[in-house]
Amino acid sequence: MQTEEDFRDFILNGHLHYIPNIAIDCAIFGYQKHQLRLLLIRHRNMNRWSLPGGHVKRTEKLEEAAYRNVKIRTGLKNLFLQQFKTFGGPDRMKFDRFDKKKWTEITGLPSWEGNWLMDQTVTVGFYAVTDFSETVLQSDISIGECAWHDLANLPPLEFDHEDIVRDALHAMRLHLYHYPIGLNLLPEKFTLSEIHALYETLLEKKLDISNFPKKLITLGLLKKLDEKRSIGAHRSPHLYSFDKVRYELALKEGLVLS
Amino acid sequence: MQTEEDFRDFILNGHLHYIPNIAIDCAIFGYQKHQLRLLLIRHRNMNRWSLPGGHVKRTEKLEEAAYRNVKIRTGLKNLFLQQFKTFGGPDRMKFDRFDKKKWTEITGLPSWEGNWLMDQTVTVGFYAVTDFSETVLQSDISIGECAWHDLANLPPLEFDHEDIVRDALHAMRLHLYHYPIGLNLLPEKFTLSEIHALYETLLEKKLDISNFPKKLITLGLLKKLDEKRSIGAHRSPHLYSFDKVRYELALKEGLVLS
Repeated sequence: MQTEEDFRDFILNGHLHYIPNIAIDCAIFGYQKHQLRLLLIRHRNMNRWSLPGGHVKRTEKLEEAAYRNVKIRTGLKNLFLQQFKTFGGPDRMKFDRFDKKKWTEITGLPSWEGNWLMDQTVTVGFYAVTDFSETVLQSDISIGECAWHDLANLPPLEFDHEDIVRDALHAMRLHLYHYPIGLNLLPEKFTLSEIHALYETLLEKKLDISNFPKKLITLGLLKKLDEKRSIGAHRSPHLYSFDKVRYELALKEGLVLS
Repeated sequence: MQTEEDFRDFILNGHLHYIPNIAIDCAIFGYQKHQLRLLLIRHRNMNRWSLPGGHVKRTEKLEEAAYRNVKIRTGLKNLFLQQFKTFGGPDRMKFDRFDKKKWTEITGLPSWEGNWLMDQTVTVGFYAVTDFSETVLQSDISIGECAWHDLANLPPLEFDHEDIVRDALHAMRLHLYHYPIGLNLLPEKFTLSEIHALYETLLEKKLDISNFPKKLITLGLLKKLDEKRSIGAHRSPHLYSFDKVRYELALKEGLVLS
């Protein structure tokens, strides 16, 4: 949305182009060695931070809506967005904190009673993990701010977005043993110490470095290569890579284990 | 729904009590040794079979809607329904095969244009696995038939329900290594041969019986007990059980592996 007029038209007539009662929300985790962040936006006229998200056009698939919204709201492209859970229920959104005077100012309507945006909404959750150092954030007319926040120190979030983040983390951590989520976060060939740092950070827990790769190798996700990297006198650790054949199979079949 | 009048009121005024544009659908798999079935229903006035499902009341959570619909439509209670994926997109439902004359007969309306039931709908998919020998099926005024079908030999399904079944299978098979889905399908203590038959059936593939339990034990799902079952002269196989502490942890934390 570029202008105030676009924004007003979206509020008044958006249900003609978007499916009412449905939204998508995206938990985008940012990784760098030993650091895990979450991308949050703050709408104009809203006090709390929230996940980037939006509505679904009548002509698009849920995934397409997720990619479009993330790109519009954050400038991020080429993410691997994974749908993980849908959130509904009578208590998930509270509109009573909204400013009714401001609503009338923007829309010209005496109240939001009957407006499509203010009806009960079910939201489809997606997550992605990306390298936060590579991203250039941007905002638009409906977004005041867009920023990475340390996961360990999040501000209070809008609606049920804290639940969405918690469940996105759980899903990502389950998938971490099935999909090589680290594929774009590590070099093609990496040391045990690099993948160990990644897994400890994403799981937010200490992992026994001697035991940790065995599970991933048993599960078929990780391959130990017959190659070493020289990183100094007497230091040349073995290299590993993700098993991409099994990765492709997993994406196609929904299953790595077999 | 008990009467024709209820049914008509649901069509005309259901959006006051149910959230428009949202539905739930349930893939309920039935297991018995070496057999895997799927529960299907056939609505009155529809030719194709479909998954049991329905709409979400404005007062209930998605999970509550799933349990309520399954109970109403099949009589099944105490299932462990697991949400796995949400389906949307402009092509997922085709209403053009419906009988417009019958619509007018039932509703008194000249067309379904603008009716809440005929607008684009996103559906939240749930799955469950149950012992099909223990279930008593029932139908109601909107359901003509309700029956178990062999998974290997399904009839053509309504809308995108074949996609929903395929993705439900994938999700169930991924979870099979994380949640003891077999908890209610096996005795509390079982032999290797019993869990092997269950896993082979649910995964629809042959598994090396000597290698198969190692993965489940490494993953922390299965415990080998210091007990045997006597099943005849010189035949007393070891017994196993699911690790329920890790199961509870998995349900709480969304993760078995650690």
